[in-house]
Amino acid sequence: MSTLSEYMEECRALVIAEIEQFVPHNRYRPILYDLMLEYPRRAGKALRPSLCIATCRAMGGRLQDVLRTAAVLELFHNAFLIHDDIEDGSLMRRGLPTLHRDYGVSIAINVGDGIFALCLQPLLDNMEELGIGKALRILELISRMVRESVEGQAIELDWIRHQRYDLRDRDYCLMAYKKTCWYTFVAPMLISGTIVGATPAQMARLRKYAAYTGVAFQIQDDLLNLVGDERHYGKESCGDLWEGKYTLMLLHMLRQAAPHERQRCVRILQQPREAKTEADVGYLYHLICRYGSIDYAREVARHLACKARHDFEKTTTFIEPSVHRDFLAAMAGHVIERVH
Amino acid sequence: MSTLSEYMEECRALVIAEIEQFVPHNRYRPILYDLMLEYPRRAGKALRPSLCIATCRAMGGRLQDVLRTAAVLELFHNAFLIHDDIEDGSLMRRGLPTLHRDYGVSIAINVGDGIFALCLQPLLDNMEELGIGKALRILELISRMVRESVEGQAIELDWIRHQRYDLRDRDYCLMAYKKTCWYTFVAPMLISGTIVGATPAQMARLRKYAAYTGVAFQIQDDLLNLVGDERHYGKESCGDLWEGKYTLMLLHMLRQAAPHERQRCVRILQQPREAKTEADVGYLYHLICRYGSIDYAREVARHLACKARHDFEKTTTFIEPSVHRDFLAAMAGHVIERVH
Repeated sequence: MSTLSEYMEECRALVIAEIEQFVPHNRYRPILYDLMLEYPRRAGKALRPSLCIATCRAMGGRLQDVLRTAAVLELFHNAFLIHDDIEDGSLMRRGLPTLHRDYGVSIAINVGDGIFALCLQPLLDNMEELGIGKALRILELISRMVRESVEGQAIELDWIRHQRYDLRDRDYCLMAYKKTCWYTFVAPMLISGTIVGATPAQMARLRKYAAYTGVAFQIQDDLLNLVGDERHYGKESCGDLWEGKYTLMLLHMLRQAAPHERQRCVRILQQPREAKTEADVGYLYHLICRYGSIDYAREVARHLACKARHDFEKTTTFIEPSVHRDFLAAMAGHVIERVH
Repeated sequence: MSTLSEYMEECRALVIAEIEQFVPHNRYRPILYDLMLEYPRRAGKALRPSLCIATCRAMGGRLQDVLRTAAVLELFHNAFLIHDDIEDGSLMRRGLPTLHRDYGVSIAINVGDGIFALCLQPLLDNMEELGIGKALRILELISRMVRESVEGQAIELDWIRHQRYDLRDRDYCLMAYKKTCWYTFVAPMLISGTIVGATPAQMARLRKYAAYTGVAFQIQDDLLNLVGDERHYGKESCGDLWEGKYTLMLLHMLRQAAPHERQRCVRILQQPREAKTEADVGYLYHLICRYGSIDYAREVARHLACKARHDFEKTTTFIEPSVHRDFLAAMAGHVIERVH
């Protein structure tokens, strides 16, 4: 596991240096561009660029072919985080207050938009290094990626708006696949597949691994929000329950609970964040533990990760052994074992 | 003037039909894509696509070369409006409640992001019709356009955050140039210049006309907010004073006011919207009238528009007479005479 952290740490240093180059050094730096760098400079994992770099290099690509796009993926991730933190009313991000708490919602929305604007030019610059065909296919994947993520977010926001609590695991998995997994796993791997000129069959295998691993990643993320150590995790403990976010654990508990318990839970969940009490959130947490919903979700994540790992070993024989391949293969295990 | 309205109405119909084609007809339509179409379907003027279409056609380009990009400009405008309305705390847009009042801030942020995502693919599709070189230059102009707009917004949000009231007309003009004028006038005209293969000298003349006319447009927009008829204008009357937005009139009045008046104004402006009273806003309005700040701003706008008109007649002899050229030439007068 320490090798995996080292690999990501190395990618992170490269990517942060690359991002600094995208950001203009003009007079608007202190009021705009420095704010774009706040989240990237906090102790992020750089998971998305690491996956992108590892996939490219495992399949014979060069670092210089992928670094710029990997940095763009990290920037997009940070724009999503800024806007998501506002949308979810989140308080903490990477161990510090969320951007909209430090600067207000207006400035935070604008900074997110600014990041979107900044991502386009480096992707156009890809033409020189990668040629027009590959650069265009990457732009199309990025366009699809943002659409998937926005659609996933729209699903969850619609559930919240209509106070839907009758949801199945497959509803959750589709939402998580679109909202998080696509931009976190699918896009980084398919972009690198494009860079190295992978065949359609190879792309299909990368996509499958990314999909299973990515949904397992999101389930573990939700688990850490409930049971993780806030110091490692960097977000508010049980923040998801305060925010009324949809997780496998919550949905499982609501299915298992007795009718009167379910009614009380729904009343609590219908309250906005500021109207909920410690006792309300404690009650939700208590039922989630009592009905074994944490173990249930862990088992779903474990099942997905095992399937991903098994398929990867069996179907990606086209990827030669290397540290980069090892990193990719280890990711399925890592996503469900990680503590932050 | 009626010819000018008819020209825009015709462009608007074409652009709305084009926009409908970009928007996916998938299962996320009711929770996401229909919301993207709310503002475009309200009675907008379609000023940006009309300018884009008129410039292209005046310089010998075909409608089919420009329509897709003109529609993208209208979409970008609507994404900016959605996010700006949240950032400014605006209540009304085109005669109806703003999107975030109907659906909540979270959904409105996400819908704006979704529009950004949707704009990329049509711009990539330009390659087929326009060739790679022109399509790429348009993408670069769009990338610059979003940056200018976000930087302009960052300037104003920074003034609000630091409660700056010691600003000069040139500070206001730079902010308005970047925040509104660039994407409303400069980008539409330069994009069409690119499509028709304008020379650098021709581009410089288009840019100059766009800059003067665009800043005059924004000053008139601010004037309409103070003195316009709410039914025509579609926004809340005096909304800018409630929101504490920076206008030439406000800055002029603060420069002219006696020290005790200025102090009282600053105290009012420092209040958030919900803490201001009718009497507070009435006081600001009263001083703006008393110190002739409305006439002052009208005169600045008139001066800019006259200069734009004069330069256009003198320097754009490369544009042959046509209804499209007439539309462009009339725009400088229109922006300061319009009532909505």
